[in-house]
Amino acid sequence: MRVVRVAALDRAEPDELSFFANHRYLKEFSGSRAGLVLISSELANEAGRPKCRIVLAKPQEAMLLVLPALYPAAPRESGIHSSAVIGRGVRLGREVAIGAHSVIGDGAVLGDRVVIGPLCDVGRGVAIGADSHLVSSVTLYAGTTLGARVRLHAGVRAGSDGFGYVPSASGIQKVPHVGRCIIEDDVEIGANSTIDRGSIADTVIGAGSKLDNLVMIAHNVRLGRMCLLAAQSGIAGSTRLGDGCMIGGQVGVTGHLELGSNVKLGAGSGVMDDIPDGEMWSGAPARPHREWLKATSAFYKLADRMREIERQLRERGT
Amino acid sequence: MRVVRVAALDRAEPDELSFFANHRYLKEFSGSRAGLVLISSELANEAGRPKCRIVLAKPQEAMLLVLPALYPAAPRESGIHSSAVIGRGVRLGREVAIGAHSVIGDGAVLGDRVVIGPLCDVGRGVAIGADSHLVSSVTLYAGTTLGARVRLHAGVRAGSDGFGYVPSASGIQKVPHVGRCIIEDDVEIGANSTIDRGSIADTVIGAGSKLDNLVMIAHNVRLGRMCLLAAQSGIAGSTRLGDGCMIGGQVGVTGHLELGSNVKLGAGSGVMDDIPDGEMWSGAPARPHREWLKATSAFYKLADRMREIERQLRERGT
Amino acid sequence: MRVVRVAALDRAEPDELSFFANHRYLKEFSGSRAGLVLISSELANEAGRPKCRIVLAKPQEAMLLVLPALYPAAPRESGIHSSAVIGRGVRLGREVAIGAHSVIGDGAVLGDRVVIGPLCDVGRGVAIGADSHLVSSVTLYAGTTLGARVRLHAGVRAGSDGFGYVPSASGIQKVPHVGRCIIEDDVEIGANSTIDRGSIADTVIGAGSKLDNLVMIAHNVRLGRMCLLAAQSGIAGSTRLGDGCMIGGQVGVTGHLELGSNVKLGAGSGVMDDIPDGEMWSGAPARPHREWLKATSAFYKLADRMREIERQLRERGT
Repeated sequence: MRVVRVAALDRAEPDELSFFANHRYLKEFSGSRAGLVLISSELANEAGRPKCRIVLAKPQEAMLLVLPALYPAAPRESGIHSSAVIGRGVRLGREVAIGAHSVIGDGAVLGDRVVIGPLCDVGRGVAIGADSHLVSSVTLYAGTTLGARVRLHAGVRAGSDGFGYVPSASGIQKVPHVGRCIIEDDVEIGANSTIDRGSIADTVIGAGSKLDNLVMIAHNVRLGRMCLLAAQSGIAGSTRLGDGCMIGGQVGVTGHLELGSNVKLGAGSGVMDDIPDGEMWSGAPARPHREWLKATSAFYKLADRMREIERQLRERGT
Repeated sequence: MRVVRVAALDRAEPDELSFFANHRYLKEFSGSRAGLVLISSELANEAGRPKCRIVLAKPQEAMLLVLPALYPAAPRESGIHSSAVIGRGVRLGREVAIGAHSVIGDGAVLGDRVVIGPLCDVGRGVAIGADSHLVSSVTLYAGTTLGARVRLHAGVRAGSDGFGYVPSASGIQKVPHVGRCIIEDDVEIGANSTIDRGSIADTVIGAGSKLDNLVMIAHNVRLGRMCLLAAQSGIAGSTRLGDGCMIGGQVGVTGHLELGSNVKLGAGSGVMDDIPDGEMWSGAPARPHREWLKATSAFYKLADRMREIERQLRERGT
Repeated sequence: MRVVRVAALDRAEPDELSFFANHRYLKEFSGSRAGLVLISSELANEAGRPKCRIVLAKPQEAMLLVLPALYPAAPRESGIHSSAVIGRGVRLGREVAIGAHSVIGDGAVLGDRVVIGPLCDVGRGVAIGADSHLVSSVTLYAGTTLGARVRLHAGVRAGSDGFGYVPSASGIQKVPHVGRCIIEDDVEIGANSTIDRGSIADTVIGAGSKLDNLVMIAHNVRLGRMCLLAAQSGIAGSTRLGDGCMIGGQVGVTGHLELGSNVKLGAGSGVMDDIPDGEMWSGAPARPHREWLKATSAFYKLADRMREIERQLRERGT
């Protein structure tokens, strides 16, 4: 028995490794064609087609350890593709790779082992720290600053002008944006997300933070360290988050707020108030999670009793 | 009288064809300069400027039939543009077209009559079925698989890493993503939408499904066949949908859920529970549509009676 | 004392100018290293490290006036980069600039001083008015029309097919899209936003309107003049907005609605009804703002009293 790839139980072939750690997937397990299954001790004796089983306390974690052996990293691209356009005064570290049709603006500085994928636009004066990777089709506006080991997925736009206008006699006047867009070390940003530059202050994505796809960070926002923002969430202008915040999918946070450290926001919530350290809020408008749970439950319960409530109000009413 | 294009009633010129099928647009009809109007029988005698009228049971459907005659398909691009970059071991079917500045990675396989627009990045080992079309500026990460007759609009990103991290002693550790991103036959995906690859399982967009713009499909999601997802909706990790689901705009579905076939979700709903076949749900958190309608109505009614309710609670209270 | 850049109070260096106009930032002011601070009269005597202070009625507005002196506009790119691909029959005005790796389709017409950044795809027959600017990686589908002084940020897609399908015996059939996408004078559109073309009617973005990042405008939508749409908002098919509307972040408006002029929508609202001129609505489903405020407040209050309400219903119940 030899496995060469991994796959989910219901799609695995005899030369593939899978794992079974949750009773919910018993049906998939019982019919699986996987050649080998990592299995948790409490499920080890479940009836099922896979006969080769390795019993482990945490099969999923074991799986993660096996991956590098089965999937060696793709050979690092290196060198500058002949179709790339390199501006004047660009400084490149050692072993930098620049992909086909990418454009590096005048005066940009790329650290050692930076990888720029194909079709990227790195603006004038951008600075990129060592070992950072722009996957593909990324735009960095002039002056954007990236730390080390930053990973920007396809279609990320960083350093764009914020949404700032003032009404004037001659129509709507644009507020010039001269603040910076600073993305610190070890940040990863998902596909097609957008990070605006600051207007006068800077926009800052704190070290180690991870943003999912289609996330929007407005001008002057400051995210602390190690924040996680799920897909399609958005933080409006000048709001600040502390360290270690966890933001659910499609969350919106309005502008000029202060969220503390380790704040958690439930998926879909809409935040309109400051939130102290360590609290979990949900709902729109968002409230502390327990309060929101209670209100949501009441919302559906009251609807059931509406006729009765109305009758009683009538009987005793004004 | 000769018409050469189509246009809405209020913008049509004398050489343009229009249609009038809904009383709501009577004002636009009465002043229309359209040279010819397809009109439904019940509106045929309305007073209005257009004198040339063709009376039909279903003018809008007739209009769709006329379109191909007035708007012949653009001449198919063909051939490989001299600025395209083609990797090693790429296999191309017959009559493949590759646009300016596109990049095809090593070992990619493109079926007959595939059209790759300009500025696309097709990663290593990608497979694209016959008659598929990447419109412009599309990114396919390495290993992504497309069926036949797939159409990806500008800025689609498919096969990107999912949002998976595990806390570790040394910070937040990235979960490697080795699952595939599989887009089956006849799928169409709107501009700037993103489809992540699987972590260990695969992400699958079922045959015939249509996704609007700015939609987010997370890792390990499986959409059934013929699903319709409106703009800015998002499906979180490992959730599965059956066939024929219709998902409204800005809907969010949290992770690890099972939605049956023919499930309908109202615009803006936020789903946190499994949903059986054939049900329509709405709201956030989503409930069966009728229950949500009732609760929403109660929500606004109770607010009106709040003072009265409070008074009665006081009078009779603990 | 000489300042050469601007910065927020807490990040400013001795060679930087800052401003202090809101008591909320007293802490940042008191420790600021800024070399010079524009300060409002009521805060002029606050204790703090910055000694050089210019007292003004409106420091923030003064700051905007100073910006052009400190940040002269980047030298305008000019000329056509040698890597750009220019189609047949393209007409270019005076002083047009076209960036590296951009593609201009057959028959496109670019007005005087138009700037096309790098990696843009301007489709066949597109018309772009004088002084417009496509920043980077923008896609304009064939036939899209832009007025003068339009600014499209990185990743904008305009003129894509709308999301229109009709069920048919042989599956889901695509509705051809032959309407236009018309973006009038002085419009600015944020990064990665998408504007679909019309199906038969046109999609129109009215003069002077400003759209933030990741906004979605569906087919046949007509926005009036001077509308502001914040990030991640979406307008569904065939809906019309009047002039001067202000749409909050993550708002969704369903299809076929009429919103008057000067309508305001609170962040996150979901609109399902027509709205008359000048009204502010909020919530999902949206209602007039005051009604929504009252209902939201009742929502949380009732939850607090739920036990009591239930007890009373039981005592007096059916």
